[in-house]
Amino acid sequence: MADKYDVIIIGGGPAGLSAGIYCGRFKLKTLVLDEKPGGTATEAHNIENYPGFESISGVDLMERVRKHAEKEGVNIIRESVFEIKKEKVGFIVKTDDAKEFACDFVIISTGNKRQKLGIPGEKEFNGKGVSYCAACDAPFFKDKVVAVVGGGNAAVMAAVLLTNFAKKVYIIYRRDKLRAEAVWNERVENHKKVEIIYKAQVKEAKGENVLKSIVLDNGKEIETSGLFIEIGGLPSIDLAKSLGVKLDKDSKIIVTDTQRTNIKNVYGAGDITTASAGFMQIVTAMSEGSIASWDILKSKKRDAEYE
Amino acid sequence: MADKYDVIIIGGGPAGLSAGIYCGRFKLKTLVLDEKPGGTATEAHNIENYPGFESISGVDLMERVRKHAEKEGVNIIRESVFEIKKEKVGFIVKTDDAKEFACDFVIISTGNKRQKLGIPGEKEFNGKGVSYCAACDAPFFKDKVVAVVGGGNAAVMAAVLLTNFAKKVYIIYRRDKLRAEAVWNERVENHKKVEIIYKAQVKEAKGENVLKSIVLDNGKEIETSGLFIEIGGLPSIDLAKSLGVKLDKDSKIIVTDTQRTNIKNVYGAGDITTASAGFMQIVTAMSEGSIASWDILKSKKRDAEYE
Repeated sequence: MADKYDVIIIGGGPAGLSAGIYCGRFKLKTLVLDEKPGGTATEAHNIENYPGFESISGVDLMERVRKHAEKEGVNIIRESVFEIKKEKVGFIVKTDDAKEFACDFVIISTGNKRQKLGIPGEKEFNGKGVSYCAACDAPFFKDKVVAVVGGGNAAVMAAVLLTNFAKKVYIIYRRDKLRAEAVWNERVENHKKVEIIYKAQVKEAKGENVLKSIVLDNGKEIETSGLFIEIGGLPSIDLAKSLGVKLDKDSKIIVTDTQRTNIKNVYGAGDITTASAGFMQIVTAMSEGSIASWDILKSKKRDAEYE
Repeated sequence: MADKYDVIIIGGGPAGLSAGIYCGRFKLKTLVLDEKPGGTATEAHNIENYPGFESISGVDLMERVRKHAEKEGVNIIRESVFEIKKEKVGFIVKTDDAKEFACDFVIISTGNKRQKLGIPGEKEFNGKGVSYCAACDAPFFKDKVVAVVGGGNAAVMAAVLLTNFAKKVYIIYRRDKLRAEAVWNERVENHKKVEIIYKAQVKEAKGENVLKSIVLDNGKEIETSGLFIEIGGLPSIDLAKSLGVKLDKDSKIIVTDTQRTNIKNVYGAGDITTASAGFMQIVTAMSEGSIASWDILKSKKRDAEYE
């Protein structure tokens, strides 16, 4: 028979591990499944906006949080989930390695991978000029030249934020017209620090130790210290979908104010959900994880165990 | 003329200081006003559920967070706010010390003081047996005897949670019938670990260094290691009220998913709001603060400054 848990958390990033800490403290028998715990937060070279840490690497912060969850009695197994099956009562979770676990509640916190350009130098200079989060990293580029790739809301908002720091902000967009909300487009179109280059794509990120320039497909090379890639995310929603969990138009899991999905006893938390008004931060993801755990603790489903 | 800020944050607890960190990083000129920064979090002897810190005192954690906000350029002034006045454009904030500050945006994060019993020993044994947060402190009472004061949802949920840890849970309630939701009442009424004492009030908390017993108004003395006082909160809403901010029936500030109140450019964050499904934790308050800041950054109101 499969090992039985109260809660299985799929995805061990900030949302999943925070949910784990809370579930553990609530004495719920809890398992976190993640091939590589820590989530996209571990990709951050330097985190300066998680309250309490003026500066810490993503790897170090998530290592602390993982240990914290383990201290609260949470079991963390480094495996990917292959399938979540709804049973008459509860769920069976199967891993890629063919292990099976049973549970009453599932929290899906599989995150939202930032979409990559897939160009030479992108990976090499990640955290050394290349960034996927302007809200996190803009302050590192005071008086520098930066470039933003994209033309939607995220890209244009990133550009506006960057004008508060950088001396010059390029927007590189493959189409011939920005497609953010009008008020945002106007802000950058009329901004003296912003230069928009339409119908262009970035083909290469170049540098030495840190990013120095980008090469466009029109052959032009632009000197820049920062390359903000804001072309959307790829929520990891295959498992949610197969359970029948409702998604919004951006493939995010629609959740209630207590992080419930449309499927009974299935919760969503973190970047993969519609919560926190779409503001994808470590602290917002952690908050969502804690709220889901509290709701699970309160759920009627567990009545029997209290008798 | 009054000093001019982009954002004035009233209340420097977890929500207010997290909002400060984010506003500071967004290059918004930001002032936090609080006679005693840190909020009710500083009353916690030992915090074990803020992800990343397995164990830290409330004073130490909030000291770190305050320094973090100051490092991001936030000005913190230790004064109470006397009045927030809406002007034609923006707001004027006056302190008890008759100082005046102007701003475009206000975040109200004045918190929610847990209601006290006002009995001898309550203050002395706070953090040494007396607690106002079962969700935070229940795990400290493994195999101990504890007592919960109150009979509403918070008290009954606290009792249920405590049955996961304590060997015996008293509920002391001044009325003759619990008034939580029926499903919750049933859980404790039928629970073998729970004993409900109706029509009784706690008159004294006694001990030596730590809590040892409580005395009821019927003369009975009960040996107990924990006294959880769950008789509601007192949101600090005078300032919000005078601005015309809408409150719910529990006197909490009603906020949207981006922490906006019904008054333009006035935000709420933390325990004083209806957000986070009412789960009042450090991490949820901080999340709310960050979301408010992000919405302020995005607000059209600041367009002029970007030209």
